[in-house]
Amino acid sequence: MTQHLGGAMFRRMKAIHLVEGRGVEALALVELPDPVPGPGEVVVRMRAASLNHRDLLVIDGAYAPFRRPFVPLSDGAGDVVAVGAGVERVAPGDRVVLSYVASWTAGPPTDERVARRLGGPDDGVLAERVRARADAVVRLPACLGDEEAATLPIAGVTAYRALFVDERLAPGQCVVVQGTGGVASFAALLAKQAGARVIATTRTREKAERARSLGADEVVVLDEHPAWDQRVLELTGGRGADRVIDVAGGRGLDRSIAACRTGGTVHLVGFLETREASFDLALAMRRVVTLRAASAGSREDLEGLVAALASGDRRPPVDLVMPWTEVREAVERMRARRHVGKIVLRFA
Amino acid sequence: MTQHLGGAMFRRMKAIHLVEGRGVEALALVELPDPVPGPGEVVVRMRAASLNHRDLLVIDGAYAPFRRPFVPLSDGAGDVVAVGAGVERVAPGDRVVLSYVASWTAGPPTDERVARRLGGPDDGVLAERVRARADAVVRLPACLGDEEAATLPIAGVTAYRALFVDERLAPGQCVVVQGTGGVASFAALLAKQAGARVIATTRTREKAERARSLGADEVVVLDEHPAWDQRVLELTGGRGADRVIDVAGGRGLDRSIAACRTGGTVHLVGFLETREASFDLALAMRRVVTLRAASAGSREDLEGLVAALASGDRRPPVDLVMPWTEVREAVERMRARRHVGKIVLRFA
Amino acid sequence: MTQHLGGAMFRRMKAIHLVEGRGVEALALVELPDPVPGPGEVVVRMRAASLNHRDLLVIDGAYAPFRRPFVPLSDGAGDVVAVGAGVERVAPGDRVVLSYVASWTAGPPTDERVARRLGGPDDGVLAERVRARADAVVRLPACLGDEEAATLPIAGVTAYRALFVDERLAPGQCVVVQGTGGVASFAALLAKQAGARVIATTRTREKAERARSLGADEVVVLDEHPAWDQRVLELTGGRGADRVIDVAGGRGLDRSIAACRTGGTVHLVGFLETREASFDLALAMRRVVTLRAASAGSREDLEGLVAALASGDRRPPVDLVMPWTEVREAVERMRARRHVGKIVLRFA
Amino acid sequence: MTQHLGGAMFRRMKAIHLVEGRGVEALALVELPDPVPGPGEVVVRMRAASLNHRDLLVIDGAYAPFRRPFVPLSDGAGDVVAVGAGVERVAPGDRVVLSYVASWTAGPPTDERVARRLGGPDDGVLAERVRARADAVVRLPACLGDEEAATLPIAGVTAYRALFVDERLAPGQCVVVQGTGGVASFAALLAKQAGARVIATTRTREKAERARSLGADEVVVLDEHPAWDQRVLELTGGRGADRVIDVAGGRGLDRSIAACRTGGTVHLVGFLETREASFDLALAMRRVVTLRAASAGSREDLEGLVAALASGDRRPPVDLVMPWTEVREAVERMRARRHVGKIVLRFA
Repeated sequence: MTQHLGGAMFRRMKAIHLVEGRGVEALALVELPDPVPGPGEVVVRMRAASLNHRDLLVIDGAYAPFRRPFVPLSDGAGDVVAVGAGVERVAPGDRVVLSYVASWTAGPPTDERVARRLGGPDDGVLAERVRARADAVVRLPACLGDEEAATLPIAGVTAYRALFVDERLAPGQCVVVQGTGGVASFAALLAKQAGARVIATTRTREKAERARSLGADEVVVLDEHPAWDQRVLELTGGRGADRVIDVAGGRGLDRSIAACRTGGTVHLVGFLETREASFDLALAMRRVVTLRAASAGSREDLEGLVAALASGDRRPPVDLVMPWTEVREAVERMRARRHVGKIVLRFA
Repeated sequence: MTQHLGGAMFRRMKAIHLVEGRGVEALALVELPDPVPGPGEVVVRMRAASLNHRDLLVIDGAYAPFRRPFVPLSDGAGDVVAVGAGVERVAPGDRVVLSYVASWTAGPPTDERVARRLGGPDDGVLAERVRARADAVVRLPACLGDEEAATLPIAGVTAYRALFVDERLAPGQCVVVQGTGGVASFAALLAKQAGARVIATTRTREKAERARSLGADEVVVLDEHPAWDQRVLELTGGRGADRVIDVAGGRGLDRSIAACRTGGTVHLVGFLETREASFDLALAMRRVVTLRAASAGSREDLEGLVAALASGDRRPPVDLVMPWTEVREAVERMRARRHVGKIVLRFA
Repeated sequence: MTQHLGGAMFRRMKAIHLVEGRGVEALALVELPDPVPGPGEVVVRMRAASLNHRDLLVIDGAYAPFRRPFVPLSDGAGDVVAVGAGVERVAPGDRVVLSYVASWTAGPPTDERVARRLGGPDDGVLAERVRARADAVVRLPACLGDEEAATLPIAGVTAYRALFVDERLAPGQCVVVQGTGGVASFAALLAKQAGARVIATTRTREKAERARSLGADEVVVLDEHPAWDQRVLELTGGRGADRVIDVAGGRGLDRSIAACRTGGTVHLVGFLETREASFDLALAMRRVVTLRAASAGSREDLEGLVAALASGDRRPPVDLVMPWTEVREAVERMRARRHVGKIVLRFA
Repeated sequence: MTQHLGGAMFRRMKAIHLVEGRGVEALALVELPDPVPGPGEVVVRMRAASLNHRDLLVIDGAYAPFRRPFVPLSDGAGDVVAVGAGVERVAPGDRVVLSYVASWTAGPPTDERVARRLGGPDDGVLAERVRARADAVVRLPACLGDEEAATLPIAGVTAYRALFVDERLAPGQCVVVQGTGGVASFAALLAKQAGARVIATTRTREKAERARSLGADEVVVLDEHPAWDQRVLELTGGRGADRVIDVAGGRGLDRSIAACRTGGTVHLVGFLETREASFDLALAMRRVVTLRAASAGSREDLEGLVAALASGDRRPPVDLVMPWTEVREAVERMRARRHVGKIVLRFA
């Protein structure tokens, strides 16, 4: 039996579809039937969504050939408005954030767990109301606003999983984060929350202050220190960083490896120009370095992230908030890479 | 070849010996030959020492029948004034803290590693100059004062090892600490440093404020909540704490177990009235709880602790500082248990 | 849409109910409607079930006051004969074993995950056909027979989780197992499979040979060595065991602790006379021992166990096979404790 | 005070020096003063040594510009014949194997720990008597012969550390080993010892049988399956291996990554043609794969390896034994790469 908040049954809702075509032109505002929760499902009235680099690739058709049309975007938060049969985890009225990899509840990644993802191949969150697995939502504490919560599922969870699940950071360790994108911003924030020392690299001095405001103890400006790995060694008394969050891949891996302490780890979070990465294996072996491909995470990881944020006073890196129907403009702003942290879309 | 700072060779020094007898009466000020470092050894001019509950037991003859006389006390910091042949880790002039379990450099505890301990059976730190293994000292950063550093080796390392080595805490987890003794104070401080939520229990409302000043987010006063485990469950939304630092043992273990979340851990740090501990095994199994005997740690753990403190702004819990020659009075103050955190002895 | 093997729809089936009353007299053969799988569910035609000590307590009303009647027994294996809507993990015709804690798919135990268990409070496996969550079954390789598979869910998974999930055993480590019950038998078998050395304790010389056949390298007969912990120290050159599987609790914990190496672990698997356990905390701290309440495990643990058995040539410890309708006699045999390993019930 | 076995003081001994020059021509038989143990040191009468690929590079001057002359070779075993002051771990008459990274006793690698290595820059084991740190030898059980023991320090420890220290293998997991070199042979042997499934790749069918004799459950002959990663996926039901021991680096990393399960690990053990390694980062991220540079290990790792071998019945992969004075011929045989496992040099 399905429970509805208030009692009124919604009939139609607005959503954005990614239809055939290229780039933001393929984003179309449509009307769809209101979703009805099946057994073990909920319907969430969306309050906020956020953009990720993945969305850019999906919209441009560069990620994977998902069958169109579908509702794009992976990150969102809102209010539960209906629950299907057998749902006990949440109730209508609960504020929740949706887990991006919907079938991944806990444990390490497996093929079975990581197959389904919101925002392609499954329908995503850019709709007034979204049907989701009850197992794949996390209740929000009062201290996290809707817009903040909407930044968590991909960027926040990726940073959380790298720092605390793949290997757990200890206070006093040193983390290098490259740039000021979503994952890097969260990594800086969470590493500080966990008592670590954070060194951020930025392309220009202009972004240095913003990196500092995200929690960086030191900022290495690449224009001033092209050999940034040497600068990290200097800043750490010759020892190197415990962890490097590498967002660029390519040939730059060697600097990330060289910036690590003996026995350190480079987290591979993404790539820019090319998906081909290369490195000096003799160097990696001499430094006994681990290269670890990052991934998004499970609902359990999202719960851990929410708890971590709730026990500190740092705010998720919301850079810009726009109405959800202006998604085309938001995507173009992301493409221009002038933001620091996350671009959020607000529902009415 | 031995290197001496300055060049002057010391001849005699003052020290405290624990001689035959009972209690503080057995503490005698003596003159001893100045120590000379052998190969792989250093001599440290002591600047500060700190008292632990263990010292009380050792002085009272209740710990183990160490052959007397010997120099008591395990925790100390000072300046390296001489190094023996082959020493490269430190040099004269370095400020250092001594590692309590001198042969335990790294790795898990083994019989071989934990046999030697400063302050019984080996000579301890209550002397103007102390000979130590170069492998068993850690250089101090400027941000840690001598008196602060002297509180680290037993209480600080025990808390650090329990929270970050035995199992590594994640930000957002919840830690319960019992009381305001040395280990509990450090556990509160370090758990906060690592982004966790801290609940402290105290006997009386009087000490509640001081527990809060050490970092506790909430304090449960036992006079008001004798069933403190129930209060912890309330404060955690029914879930329970991830970790409980138990300092009392005895029959109270059941409350520590009941205060844990399913799958949580009770760290067994000490005991008060009796060394016999008991618990409801059915309860422990239903909650899938781990009881983990704590221990002091290796030099590597001490290095980790120093790094953790250096990357935050919390201060070690120095409660009271007295001249080192007033050790008898200091011991009696410890016995009276009115301090919060650590009692420190200052060398001239 | 529900798929049925063959096409014939079953109407009624036989099952055992635990009705009001005491002991095996409360086990009644009944006819029930054939189960129909809901969405995400399967129906399994049972081929074999096995008894655990828990069943004895449940049947005697000593475990928890489950509302009666219900179908008892937690461990079973059989063939999938129908699957509900949305089921892709398994198909009709697959041989499967059922996971005992049905909602626990992966990750550490949580209240939410461990609430539901087969054989009380949920209906168990002593029925011709059983409805189960598709998420809570594991496909069987050809090398594991139905009767063997039926021994895995509680005893096998508990041993597997203690040895490889709670802390992962390394080859060359030493494991002590107490007795020849289900968990102890699996622990001996799995520890040998993982390249460890196994020392078993048995009450009498009579069972020593059977312990050896389960994989024990050495057997300590308690009648000959009441101070069995000393014998373990002798057999390990004074070092002690890395792990002790303790099945008795009570005051005997001290011997399990004393039999451990410094830094070793005692797994608390059960208790015999009393649920009250006690130990010498000073001894535990001196040996830096961990006491870890064992638990059953997740579907992922069950998958790990199946893979472990499939890659070796050791057989699950099936001691006795009886027809499932003779469950009363089987329970009384278990109560008499003359079996080694597991008692299995065979369906026609 | 130095203790000598028997009482006779040796005066001169034979050793091999690596002098100026290229290749094996630079290996010269010399007479050196008999070593005398300093404090904390021992002298070992060598019984056997073994060759590693590293020795080839060192002798060819391709590894690092070590100052010559020095005694080459890193792996050796023999009898303690003298101990220096303060040595309690071993006594004259003990059979021991030497730890290759002499200052690395336990814990993770650090710059300080990994600086000193036998066989360059420090003097190695190709001498009748070798002076070593007492902390850097491990006593041998009777079941390991001198020649077998001499194969452990580099190849055995590297495989042990990768499989059980970096990440601990569980029984039932699947390990792929490339080729039949020293590390690969030990990895196959140890993975089987730990209850895992082993798939070996070999260049030709000729070596397949020998790979099988080392413990491989399946062998993939590269001449028959150039796309060996696809063959591994077939053999694992599409899932992939948990771990791949990659000895080649280069562009071949992509196949190692593709052969892994989602969440699997590639251990980077060495390289053949080029030290440049490259891989498809998008693939690595989609499979969430970790690339982990392997390293030799600590004395604690060597102890773990000895214990693992002692608790099983598999023999270290000794392929060929020659007199130690025929080291030039032995090196050339290694260069020809026709051996499987290890080439051992036997002292008189």
